[in-house]
Amino acid sequence: MSQPTGDIGLIGLAVMGQNLILNMNDKGFNVVAYNRTVSKVDDFLANEAKGTKVQGAHSIEELCAKLKTPRKIILLVKAGPAVDAFIEQLIPHLEKGDIIIDGGNSHYPDSIRRVKELEAKGFLFVGSGVSGGEEGARYGPSLMPGGSPAAWPAIKQIFQATAAQVNGEPCCDWVGESGAGHYVKMVHNGIEYGDMQLIAEAYDILKRGLGLPESEIADIFLKWNTGVLDSFLIDITANILKFNDDDGEPMVSKILDQAGQKGTGKWTAIAALDAGMPVTLIGEAVFARCLSSLKEERVRASKVISGPQKEEFKGDKKQFIDDLEQALYASKIISYAQGFMLMRATAKELNWKLNYAGIARMWRGGCIIKSVFLGDITSAYTKNEELESLLFDDFFNKAVHKAQPGWRRINAQAVLWGIPTPAFSTALAFFDGYRSDVLPANILQAQRDYFGAHTFRVLPGKENAKLQSGKDIHINWTGRGGNVSASSYVA
Amino acid sequence: MSQPTGDIGLIGLAVMGQNLILNMNDKGFNVVAYNRTVSKVDDFLANEAKGTKVQGAHSIEELCAKLKTPRKIILLVKAGPAVDAFIEQLIPHLEKGDIIIDGGNSHYPDSIRRVKELEAKGFLFVGSGVSGGEEGARYGPSLMPGGSPAAWPAIKQIFQATAAQVNGEPCCDWVGESGAGHYVKMVHNGIEYGDMQLIAEAYDILKRGLGLPESEIADIFLKWNTGVLDSFLIDITANILKFNDDDGEPMVSKILDQAGQKGTGKWTAIAALDAGMPVTLIGEAVFARCLSSLKEERVRASKVISGPQKEEFKGDKKQFIDDLEQALYASKIISYAQGFMLMRATAKELNWKLNYAGIARMWRGGCIIKSVFLGDITSAYTKNEELESLLFDDFFNKAVHKAQPGWRRINAQAVLWGIPTPAFSTALAFFDGYRSDVLPANILQAQRDYFGAHTFRVLPGKENAKLQSGKDIHINWTGRGGNVSASSYVA
Repeated sequence: MSQPTGDIGLIGLAVMGQNLILNMNDKGFNVVAYNRTVSKVDDFLANEAKGTKVQGAHSIEELCAKLKTPRKIILLVKAGPAVDAFIEQLIPHLEKGDIIIDGGNSHYPDSIRRVKELEAKGFLFVGSGVSGGEEGARYGPSLMPGGSPAAWPAIKQIFQATAAQVNGEPCCDWVGESGAGHYVKMVHNGIEYGDMQLIAEAYDILKRGLGLPESEIADIFLKWNTGVLDSFLIDITANILKFNDDDGEPMVSKILDQAGQKGTGKWTAIAALDAGMPVTLIGEAVFARCLSSLKEERVRASKVISGPQKEEFKGDKKQFIDDLEQALYASKIISYAQGFMLMRATAKELNWKLNYAGIARMWRGGCIIKSVFLGDITSAYTKNEELESLLFDDFFNKAVHKAQPGWRRINAQAVLWGIPTPAFSTALAFFDGYRSDVLPANILQAQRDYFGAHTFRVLPGKENAKLQSGKDIHINWTGRGGNVSASSYVA
Repeated sequence: MSQPTGDIGLIGLAVMGQNLILNMNDKGFNVVAYNRTVSKVDDFLANEAKGTKVQGAHSIEELCAKLKTPRKIILLVKAGPAVDAFIEQLIPHLEKGDIIIDGGNSHYPDSIRRVKELEAKGFLFVGSGVSGGEEGARYGPSLMPGGSPAAWPAIKQIFQATAAQVNGEPCCDWVGESGAGHYVKMVHNGIEYGDMQLIAEAYDILKRGLGLPESEIADIFLKWNTGVLDSFLIDITANILKFNDDDGEPMVSKILDQAGQKGTGKWTAIAALDAGMPVTLIGEAVFARCLSSLKEERVRASKVISGPQKEEFKGDKKQFIDDLEQALYASKIISYAQGFMLMRATAKELNWKLNYAGIARMWRGGCIIKSVFLGDITSAYTKNEELESLLFDDFFNKAVHKAQPGWRRINAQAVLWGIPTPAFSTALAFFDGYRSDVLPANILQAQRDYFGAHTFRVLPGKENAKLQSGKDIHINWTGRGGNVSASSYVA
């Protein structure tokens, strides 16, 4: 057999895999392609990959034999058991120091486990977020690799060349140890859910509130795309709104309003609940998809529940649309602030060192949430890598203050119109809660102590002989309950 | 050794256990008490249980020997490994047909597992929700038993006698098979989180919005407690607000505004995400506790982020307070509608038969969320046990329509004041989404198809040759992407 010439192998020839291969080929790397249904390899070589240097492999053994060492093999297969199955199949054909890279949407606890298992056997493992969809994979995705640190020098050149470039900088850097790559990708996807939901709510306000046709809404999005909201999702939404069916009707008006959610958005919301971090905007975005999926129930409900009388908008439309831009911008700042709060909390808990400026830089291009905005986040964390929250950064602090009046007007108007804005609303509620030195949780604590003897602590400045700082205090509110504090019962 | 005389045994002498024993003793049952730290047994018999018929046991063996067969043993210990450890210790001393009852706040998947494991060994297992805190346990809790159906006839008399009674009906009935008892208790607790958060937000609006002192707020709650909001939590909140420290200051104003959340509220939110049901109010209530717990960060944020100019309220105060009552009522209807939606979805998925009228009846008294309101829910499900949502029931449908104008005014005012009302807001957003036959999720689907070839379906009524009903449709939005649909990549 001849000397191996493959720089990197890739398993899984669905659209993402095919496009990533073609992209790496364009960047000058020799890629070996393999797929479980082997006929797909031949189809790919005969069609999409025709005229490239891509090699095919018809077995795992052939794939490994065609790769230079240390072997680098990317899996782009369905997250879950398929990943473990391929790892199992690969191992007999690998040597110590070879690198398996999982580029699928794996759940980060799986990546934590796989790093441990493979390192114990002398191999290296990388769990890498890959974002950007078809287009990104083909022309430059955002890549978020994390796992065995020793793998990074070996894959850095391929990864950074393959990734999107913004201002000459690749949208790929080492994220961190263990499951950090897939964790950060999960949060990215959660934020993506949030961004999409915010855009959908803005569209709904323009359509059902102002009564604008899709073509005009598209123009508004195009204009927004030249300002603070400049981003891939705003841009494609404008394109979508301008795309008409053959009969001239906007295509979007023919699309069923039912969105799925079973993936990484849900994981992010659950991770937030587990970490005890109020990542409310992603939570509402996921729940909004759940509600959308109850289409038939909503149609039945629409027949028996009526909203407020529809009134024509009599205010200043231009001002209203500017307000809406500010509402969307401010809500987006909140969503990203929440996402970074979650990453900070998790990094602290799992003892990871995450580079927040680097994460924002990776997200700035190539991926679904790419935006100018992420450049501003990069700057914020570059100035202060220990930044507690985006809202403490001068730039974003000024931005939310500027946005605030319009943001409030939009929320109030949507409520009076009867247009649901769960993401806009929760963003504002979070903002008002976050800037409250005192929240009404004292009521919750009093209630919990009243009915379950759960105890409370004293508010700083209110200490006295009975209410001592740092002590768990129980009061016999009724004169009837005992003096036993609850220990086995937690409400 | 003499003939056993114990009707039921109880392990775990924290406050809930002690009170439940005294309650069962009052109802004429002979209870045998055991605790791992055995000195607690003697203390209990010498003090709280002095003069009762309660027997003590100083070992598991003695406990089992003192019980009539089939033995019934309630565990009131910390949820988790402690429950399994006691089950393990009990088994050698049990006979086939004996019944272990877990009355702690166990997570329902554990109860599902325990039913299977114990039934396989010839024993019976019941996972029972117990709600009502100290007071409830002592004078009549809400009991929600589920598990091995054969156990119910044996424990029914003790359980129904021990439970709270409302209009001569016990707040205890058989919930269902498997983990249904703890599942329903979990949802109960989630709803409790929601109810508490709604009350806290109403208090905040009255305090920070209207600027009322605690004593006046207490009077408002007392008045509400004579109307549609008549409930334990409203009642105790009035008592709490009237409770002053020795210096005459309201005690509540000295309580740290930091509430914990690591329990059943979080589980409910996660169960909702897993079931794909939009239980948004409980979700926001849990996140509100998370945000409250970031006390020091909030204090720092309050110094650099300012809200809207504070303006004195110039409207009709009485009308405003009536609006607030309606906002609280409508939000509560939404929260319970969401909770029952979740139970229906889970029952369907796990093939459980749940008695919804019975569940509402169990919650009507004895527990933390007990209320007149739950009597109305009982009626709704008694009239129609297949009720799709509370919002389809005549009584509640009329109630939300009546509440709607005030509910919207309160939300709009809170937004303009800068008072966070995450639970009120999400309730209204859900209501407006639920009654929308068309939501803007068409935008999400178009975006997902645009960037990831995720496909969409056609809106009914808009079908044509290219857009066929029941088909997954992909459009080449840009003219650049391929025709491959995404299969391995799910955003």
